[in-house]
Amino acid sequence: MPSVNENFLKLEKNYLFINIAKKVNAFTSAHPEADVIRMGIGDVTLPIAKCVVYAMKKGADEMGVKETFKGYEDSGAGYDFLKEAVSGYYKSFGVDVPADDIRINDGAKSDCGNIVDIFGDDNVVLITDPAYPVYVDTNLMSGRKVIYCDSNEENGFAAMPDENVKCDLIYLCSPNNPTGSVYTKEQLKVWIEYAKKNNAIIIYDSAYEAFITDENVPRSIFAVEGAKECAIEMCSLSKTAGFTGMRCGYTVIPKELTVTASDGTEVSISQLWGRREGSKFNGVSYPVQCAAAAVFTPEGLKQTRENIEYYQNNARTIANTLDELGIKYTGGKNSPYIWLKCPNGMGSWEFFDLLLEKAGVVGTPGAGFGKNGEGWFRLTAFGDKDRTAEAMERLKKLLSE
Amino acid sequence: MPSVNENFLKLEKNYLFINIAKKVNAFTSAHPEADVIRMGIGDVTLPIAKCVVYAMKKGADEMGVKETFKGYEDSGAGYDFLKEAVSGYYKSFGVDVPADDIRINDGAKSDCGNIVDIFGDDNVVLITDPAYPVYVDTNLMSGRKVIYCDSNEENGFAAMPDENVKCDLIYLCSPNNPTGSVYTKEQLKVWIEYAKKNNAIIIYDSAYEAFITDENVPRSIFAVEGAKECAIEMCSLSKTAGFTGMRCGYTVIPKELTVTASDGTEVSISQLWGRREGSKFNGVSYPVQCAAAAVFTPEGLKQTRENIEYYQNNARTIANTLDELGIKYTGGKNSPYIWLKCPNGMGSWEFFDLLLEKAGVVGTPGAGFGKNGEGWFRLTAFGDKDRTAEAMERLKKLLSE
Repeated sequence: MPSVNENFLKLEKNYLFINIAKKVNAFTSAHPEADVIRMGIGDVTLPIAKCVVYAMKKGADEMGVKETFKGYEDSGAGYDFLKEAVSGYYKSFGVDVPADDIRINDGAKSDCGNIVDIFGDDNVVLITDPAYPVYVDTNLMSGRKVIYCDSNEENGFAAMPDENVKCDLIYLCSPNNPTGSVYTKEQLKVWIEYAKKNNAIIIYDSAYEAFITDENVPRSIFAVEGAKECAIEMCSLSKTAGFTGMRCGYTVIPKELTVTASDGTEVSISQLWGRREGSKFNGVSYPVQCAAAAVFTPEGLKQTRENIEYYQNNARTIANTLDELGIKYTGGKNSPYIWLKCPNGMGSWEFFDLLLEKAGVVGTPGAGFGKNGEGWFRLTAFGDKDRTAEAMERLKKLLSE
Repeated sequence: MPSVNENFLKLEKNYLFINIAKKVNAFTSAHPEADVIRMGIGDVTLPIAKCVVYAMKKGADEMGVKETFKGYEDSGAGYDFLKEAVSGYYKSFGVDVPADDIRINDGAKSDCGNIVDIFGDDNVVLITDPAYPVYVDTNLMSGRKVIYCDSNEENGFAAMPDENVKCDLIYLCSPNNPTGSVYTKEQLKVWIEYAKKNNAIIIYDSAYEAFITDENVPRSIFAVEGAKECAIEMCSLSKTAGFTGMRCGYTVIPKELTVTASDGTEVSISQLWGRREGSKFNGVSYPVQCAAAAVFTPEGLKQTRENIEYYQNNARTIANTLDELGIKYTGGKNSPYIWLKCPNGMGSWEFFDLLLEKAGVVGTPGAGFGKNGEGWFRLTAFGDKDRTAEAMERLKKLLSE
């Protein structure tokens, strides 16, 4: 009889957001009349920019004509036109990422999870806590030892390394999901020095980079010297251009990045990943890649920028309400997430239930992101402007009762 | 320092088709004037059906309008409209697969590779040889013991189980890639009995089912009694509807399928896979799912059927030529692949080089699919009609010299 991977049995039975969906569904079934405002899962709501839709349709048309039909991609790592576009995007904020270090994927979550394949299961993995559950779950699935670095109220939910702690892989996310905190250039320098001292690799999630407004907050770890010898970066069009339902992202693996195998040979991480993808992936849909490339055209950047500003306004609405209510939070600036301290010393799930049942507003319990999340709560700015304002009115009313 | 997964270092450095692409690129660089006919990688060449393109464009348009915009899927396992369509497709050839046993993915290769995640690394994996390299490589990447069951000239390249061999996971592919052979209902019954006796799970790849014409050859393992308690099926729209560049497939995991964990609890394979996907996958692009659903409409089936018949004609052209030349082969019927014995006792790569250099025709060396492939060679029927005929003329000329 086959054995199952028993590491799975030690995990929470469901992925966090599936649990939340179940709770919300139960509530709406019991209260079909309830007008629920969803600020839980970090999903966007504004439509895809017109020029991006146009590019996708053009790509679809090409698939319908023999002369322009596209089958398998040769490499599966993305078409050159898209890799060049991403490279140009990096250049637009002053970061040099050559096109051949870029690999196109169906979203940052996939590569974030699948990257575990190429490393040994004996690695010690350092993850800042709270964190996006994918980092923890996918490493636990591989049976790896995960150690945590505390992000908390004291350090503004921006954990810094402890010199005395040894590790092999480090997951960082800035702007952070769920806390909305960011690392400055100086802080990232400290992390890079720490990684180099430990010979560790940083897996850097920059999915929310498009929300950065502060000049001293890098939009890529590769904006910081030395990163190419110790970091992999994962980014996505989900939040940059509303691609949560379109599915396209990219991973940067610098060709400089190598690891010494047990027999002393230098192994290229990029080659190892290519071998993994060669056997388990066949690239992203051609019309989706056409759509993604359109995001990085001047017109695409202008249209998507408008959407980001819309969400940034929502973040301000939420932040202003919390200021008014005297509730502590991080994020809101440089980030679509607002991470707030549950009022009146409530626990995360307690506040989740209260907010859902009494105000019809769905957020995400901080405890779902790790132990330091207990007593905290995540709201997202990805909703409709009027609904966000309405949710804040309901919150004010709830807390004044 | 992180350790790498050293199982990777034991693999062939590159995925087979990347090696072939390199050889062909080297040849075309050296001979820019050469008119190369590609019958190597199993990629389709006919464009996507008009009604499918139309559905994708409609889906893209919906993404551009706030009211119809789609973000993350709730489940990530596919929209109900597509799962219902796939379920209806199964029903059209008499197989009962409920929609909630179906999971939509970005192609059979991804799930074929990723399914290794949910099983223990101590499993013994039985793979028929020759085989699609993904089965072997992805299990070797996990450090599993792979044993082989010989498909060879004697058994018509349709290996049957040996009662004395014990295993936990079994990979079967019918119509087979690379050999074009098929299992009859009776043969599949034997495999299912064998799996049940071993308490093993069959991972059944039916990617080429649309090419089956023979009534006694099942288009799904679930056409055979007892399969739901011991099999997972993976299929794809790549060959059914020319989706190699569109990226959409589906995996069927019957809810009946369970495995006993070491603590005695019954573990649902479907739930385990859902947990894996919840952490490492975010579903297929919405417009791609719209396109996929259109394949299963009456108009979509009619249009894609015409393409399949076109390829079937190519298969006949190849088979007739081989008959004429007195070359042994399997496949061509019920399959887009023709698996031929290299003429004059040549080795696979030797014949590959000869055919490329002297006739400008690219095929796939059988040796790349396993030890029983040595001396054999795969041609595909997915090319253009006139080019296929031209390739066969060149082959005749080459062998008459």
